[in-house]
Amino acid sequence: MKPFMDKDFLLRGDTAKVLYHDYASQMPIIDYHCHINPAEIMENRRFDNITQAWLGGDHYKWRLMRAVGVEERYITGDAPDREKFQKFAETLPFCIGNPIHHWTHLELRRYFGCDLVINGDTAQQVWELTEKKLKDDALSVRGIIASSGVQAIGTTDDPLDDLRWHKALRDDPSNKAVVSPTFRPDKAINIDKPDFADYIAKLGALTGKGIKTVDDLKAALLQRINFFNEMGCRASDHGLDYVIFRPADERTVASIFRKGLEGAPITEAEAESFKTALMLFFGREFARLGWIMQLHYGALRGNNTAMLGRLGPDTGYDAISTRECSQAVAGFLNALEVDGKLPKTILYSLSPNDSAMLTTVMGCFQGAGAMGKIQHGSAWWFNDTKIGMEQQMLNLANTGVLGTFIGMLTDSRSFLSYTRHEYFRRILCNLLGDMVERGEHPADMKVLGEMAKNISYRNVARYFGYEVLA
Amino acid sequence: MKPFMDKDFLLRGDTAKVLYHDYASQMPIIDYHCHINPAEIMENRRFDNITQAWLGGDHYKWRLMRAVGVEERYITGDAPDREKFQKFAETLPFCIGNPIHHWTHLELRRYFGCDLVINGDTAQQVWELTEKKLKDDALSVRGIIASSGVQAIGTTDDPLDDLRWHKALRDDPSNKAVVSPTFRPDKAINIDKPDFADYIAKLGALTGKGIKTVDDLKAALLQRINFFNEMGCRASDHGLDYVIFRPADERTVASIFRKGLEGAPITEAEAESFKTALMLFFGREFARLGWIMQLHYGALRGNNTAMLGRLGPDTGYDAISTRECSQAVAGFLNALEVDGKLPKTILYSLSPNDSAMLTTVMGCFQGAGAMGKIQHGSAWWFNDTKIGMEQQMLNLANTGVLGTFIGMLTDSRSFLSYTRHEYFRRILCNLLGDMVERGEHPADMKVLGEMAKNISYRNVARYFGYEVLA
Amino acid sequence: MKPFMDKDFLLRGDTAKVLYHDYASQMPIIDYHCHINPAEIMENRRFDNITQAWLGGDHYKWRLMRAVGVEERYITGDAPDREKFQKFAETLPFCIGNPIHHWTHLELRRYFGCDLVINGDTAQQVWELTEKKLKDDALSVRGIIASSGVQAIGTTDDPLDDLRWHKALRDDPSNKAVVSPTFRPDKAINIDKPDFADYIAKLGALTGKGIKTVDDLKAALLQRINFFNEMGCRASDHGLDYVIFRPADERTVASIFRKGLEGAPITEAEAESFKTALMLFFGREFARLGWIMQLHYGALRGNNTAMLGRLGPDTGYDAISTRECSQAVAGFLNALEVDGKLPKTILYSLSPNDSAMLTTVMGCFQGAGAMGKIQHGSAWWFNDTKIGMEQQMLNLANTGVLGTFIGMLTDSRSFLSYTRHEYFRRILCNLLGDMVERGEHPADMKVLGEMAKNISYRNVARYFGYEVLA
Repeated sequence: MKPFMDKDFLLRGDTAKVLYHDYASQMPIIDYHCHINPAEIMENRRFDNITQAWLGGDHYKWRLMRAVGVEERYITGDAPDREKFQKFAETLPFCIGNPIHHWTHLELRRYFGCDLVINGDTAQQVWELTEKKLKDDALSVRGIIASSGVQAIGTTDDPLDDLRWHKALRDDPSNKAVVSPTFRPDKAINIDKPDFADYIAKLGALTGKGIKTVDDLKAALLQRINFFNEMGCRASDHGLDYVIFRPADERTVASIFRKGLEGAPITEAEAESFKTALMLFFGREFARLGWIMQLHYGALRGNNTAMLGRLGPDTGYDAISTRECSQAVAGFLNALEVDGKLPKTILYSLSPNDSAMLTTVMGCFQGAGAMGKIQHGSAWWFNDTKIGMEQQMLNLANTGVLGTFIGMLTDSRSFLSYTRHEYFRRILCNLLGDMVERGEHPADMKVLGEMAKNISYRNVARYFGYEVLA
Repeated sequence: MKPFMDKDFLLRGDTAKVLYHDYASQMPIIDYHCHINPAEIMENRRFDNITQAWLGGDHYKWRLMRAVGVEERYITGDAPDREKFQKFAETLPFCIGNPIHHWTHLELRRYFGCDLVINGDTAQQVWELTEKKLKDDALSVRGIIASSGVQAIGTTDDPLDDLRWHKALRDDPSNKAVVSPTFRPDKAINIDKPDFADYIAKLGALTGKGIKTVDDLKAALLQRINFFNEMGCRASDHGLDYVIFRPADERTVASIFRKGLEGAPITEAEAESFKTALMLFFGREFARLGWIMQLHYGALRGNNTAMLGRLGPDTGYDAISTRECSQAVAGFLNALEVDGKLPKTILYSLSPNDSAMLTTVMGCFQGAGAMGKIQHGSAWWFNDTKIGMEQQMLNLANTGVLGTFIGMLTDSRSFLSYTRHEYFRRILCNLLGDMVERGEHPADMKVLGEMAKNISYRNVARYFGYEVLA
Repeated sequence: MKPFMDKDFLLRGDTAKVLYHDYASQMPIIDYHCHINPAEIMENRRFDNITQAWLGGDHYKWRLMRAVGVEERYITGDAPDREKFQKFAETLPFCIGNPIHHWTHLELRRYFGCDLVINGDTAQQVWELTEKKLKDDALSVRGIIASSGVQAIGTTDDPLDDLRWHKALRDDPSNKAVVSPTFRPDKAINIDKPDFADYIAKLGALTGKGIKTVDDLKAALLQRINFFNEMGCRASDHGLDYVIFRPADERTVASIFRKGLEGAPITEAEAESFKTALMLFFGREFARLGWIMQLHYGALRGNNTAMLGRLGPDTGYDAISTRECSQAVAGFLNALEVDGKLPKTILYSLSPNDSAMLTTVMGCFQGAGAMGKIQHGSAWWFNDTKIGMEQQMLNLANTGVLGTFIGMLTDSRSFLSYTRHEYFRRILCNLLGDMVERGEHPADMKVLGEMAKNISYRNVARYFGYEVLA
């Protein structure tokens, strides 16, 4: 029996062990898509206790607690932090096989040097130990980033954001990691949401333009895109219920936009046509700037409307949608490609059913000028598990090219989650090593070691245009 | 090489063996959803021969025989029982990897103490041996139930059923197992089926109410729900083609119902609105009574209409539907939850594509007051295989909480199928043991043993409110 | 560590090794569905170099090259053959886990006796060695067919084809393999494509009938079906975007056909009704002749319209569609079965999401008279990988009957791809052997060896009516 989470955690054979320890583990981290708050880096936030660090905004953990019947006051309510942690510690033993079980224990080992198993009995010990350690500089936000070997971070930002924290970080010589904004204009295209007209008004005010037409809207967005670009932005991100492709002529789009500004009801087809027009506009601009376009789709959001009303979005009430959109994915990419305006693109679906489809659709739009220009993003959100990552990579290997994969991102709201890159790299090396051990790939450690480094780090550094440090 | 079906069948490592033999195998059985006939328990039916016991109503086996080209007269026709068994025995060697191969051999070993491999050559020997053993009291229906350690059984019953056999069983002190009815009102909501108006008329006659309005219908159904409740019913069951959520106002539903009573044509949208209204009514009533609502969906039924005409439903002509309904699942649960009227619910889809979706949707409706209030039901029907069960449990572990799972049910028409609980428990223990052996979970046998017992028995006992005996 | 691609490649345990080496590997090959050009068999084509043999028309390989950023001139352009091979050799090391990596190395070993690993450094050596060997008679097209043990080949042919090469091959006593045409009438039903009316005109001219009505069309097609039948055709093949079942009355179909002939716009629903009528006509005729109907569906074709315009179809711009059609699959088969006119049918979907659905739908239409009358085709195209084949066979074993499976076909455009049958057989034997080694199936080598032979060869020989030679 292998001991729990020892140095060869998740590594089966000798090839896997060498690939991880001698190659992958040595690489810096580029966490190109996450939801951390740049202000907390600038201000070098510290956490008073493990509840703040782990349970503050992590709705993955909240869902587990709800699933074992914990009362909401111990989750998002006013219970004391110590009691909240107790409930979480009592929840974990039910969660065998859940990535949260692995992640929390990995974080406890790597950041706190503690190899306890977390449960109701050990909670007090863990609480005390982590409380003490959290006073160290090493566990300030900047300390964590540095000790994790993080070279660059991509945040997620609204077009209206003034990016003051990104600017401050750029101007602060004591800050080592590159912190790039990511342009996420969901609110500017969600014409079917009640706050659309308000949002457009704010965008008009910020850019000093009265937005009355689609051209006005594009001009205002372009101004923000250019501003983001000056501020070091290298990518966009789009949260879509499903990928949309319903082209319409300019007059139709113009009239839909007018309805949207007036708050008139918008049909699903109208919303799709408007969004298609805007997404095509974005794609062309991103291609011009050399940005990377990220499409995250396949979520059913805010399903529990009572709790959504109480707690707001991103509080653990989202799920996987299995709505089908293969033809739209292909149609949208083609509409950009046909004019030579398809930017580098990363496709993520929350539905595991889309895996083979996405990899094969993306294979129709690869081409000269970039290794893996179109990417199938790493296993996302609910799929970001050992099995999910294995399936995503095996799918990529089987129906595409694994060697050009840009690999892992945390998509996280927590600074302690950089260990997920370790988790990913172990799974990657195990997968590569397994093929070798089974005689399914030549045991050429030069090629394999290079590949482990590429997928862990170099591919993404080159793809995003960061300096390749290792 | 591991011998075929030895005592460590399906158990790889030592942890798995200990978990199964010392923990899971010791637990009683609660078979909370099946299709056995309670009259056969009351009358303590005996089987003349193995064809009666195995091939009487088991369309899983019939499908295998048809797939190898056996003529229908040896399946559902008038061929002698011995010849039918011969054809079945000759079919099995083609069925490597099919659960029927495992189940029949497991039943032969456990109930008949015979470790032969079934094929055309051994058929006569198996026939003679089973014929002899079937004369024992131990192989009467009650004998089988007792020797299998069955504490409770949930049958499947129409609202019109008088439950006389359930009453007789309850009043019979010699009967040991609890036999609870389950309320399955499919015919009361299938307004698009030709026998709808007839069914409503019968319901009206039985309840002494003329059913002219939706309120009348609800009142009549409520009378039956209350009667079922008095008779020990703890759960409903709903067979849906797909999960429906198309709310409509009361007037619309009323007018659709009138059309249904008159036998007028009903559109798909109308049927969906009517069914939504009734399902919401049911959900609220079940929440009031503390019942459990089971939703079984995703079947394409009676696909071969020629054979359906000859043999009727449930004769082996059903298949998996891949129709998508994620938004409806979330919408339906939310519509009950928003008023605090969501009962405990078990979701089962026949399509394996729905697994990750169901577990994540259900995660939005968990909450205080029950461990795993909403459940993703055990791998159902065509998925009730070694691989299917592993995938269902790994999915649950990865995207939900495995430790609160209520586990196995047979869904069977046969009294010899309690060994499927053994089959499930071995797969469960192997899955838990594997994680430990690979160093992916702490080797804490107290936690793991408890979990094996919980998922095998205690969780379901608590969930359904049965006495926890072990 | 197992050496790369040794004699026990893909074979884990001893049972698997015996099953492959002593049983499966001994069987002839029936490659019942492929896209090779019969003229090249007749003329016994030779290849000047490995680029011609490997990269001439193989868009699987082109996609890999594009995915690593190779310029199109080295793929389909005018770069010299040696340079094209260099680029391919440099691409392969990125493609760990891709079946092309396995296939090319297997072909290099089996046909060229060379066990080098292909990459940029070895490219020159491989080039020289293969160039020399390609001068041997053994590596002429007929040489390859003979040394591969190919008994029969099924090509893919348009109804307008005069089958002159098939005739010439039949009349040539020096030709050993049976080369049968396959009737693929896609163009005759694609009423929504711009070249439909032209195609119908050509069909009319060829058959000497003016085609003005649906009956005329059927008569002309029937004439071609009968001609194909005389020429040894045993099967049809249909490339469908998705399976369609939208029955309409004769007058409606007639009026849709008239619109098609006039080049008037056709709605999706109209196209579906026309295609349904024609597919039902085909099915009935095939049943009459004892033909096998193959349905290949689930592809999104020609997604990159710019490249489609430059290079034409089948050049690497196709992908998987996940459009759902379970009800149509069941409805279409039933509409033929209800009149007793359902021919032997092989179902292939490009979407792995359809696997369980297809096997269970097909299970509703099995019956007396054939072992496995309806077949779930071997893992197709993008799924034709080690994992894809394992999943297809495990799915078949779990939800159907593996023992009646007709097994592998190459679907290939290359004469060197017969090693894919070896690849399949190793995976099959490993899968069977694994179940035995794990104690999940009796270690009866007579039964297992028979099954390995059946699935590798005998089942397909019997299913297609070829002489059973081994």
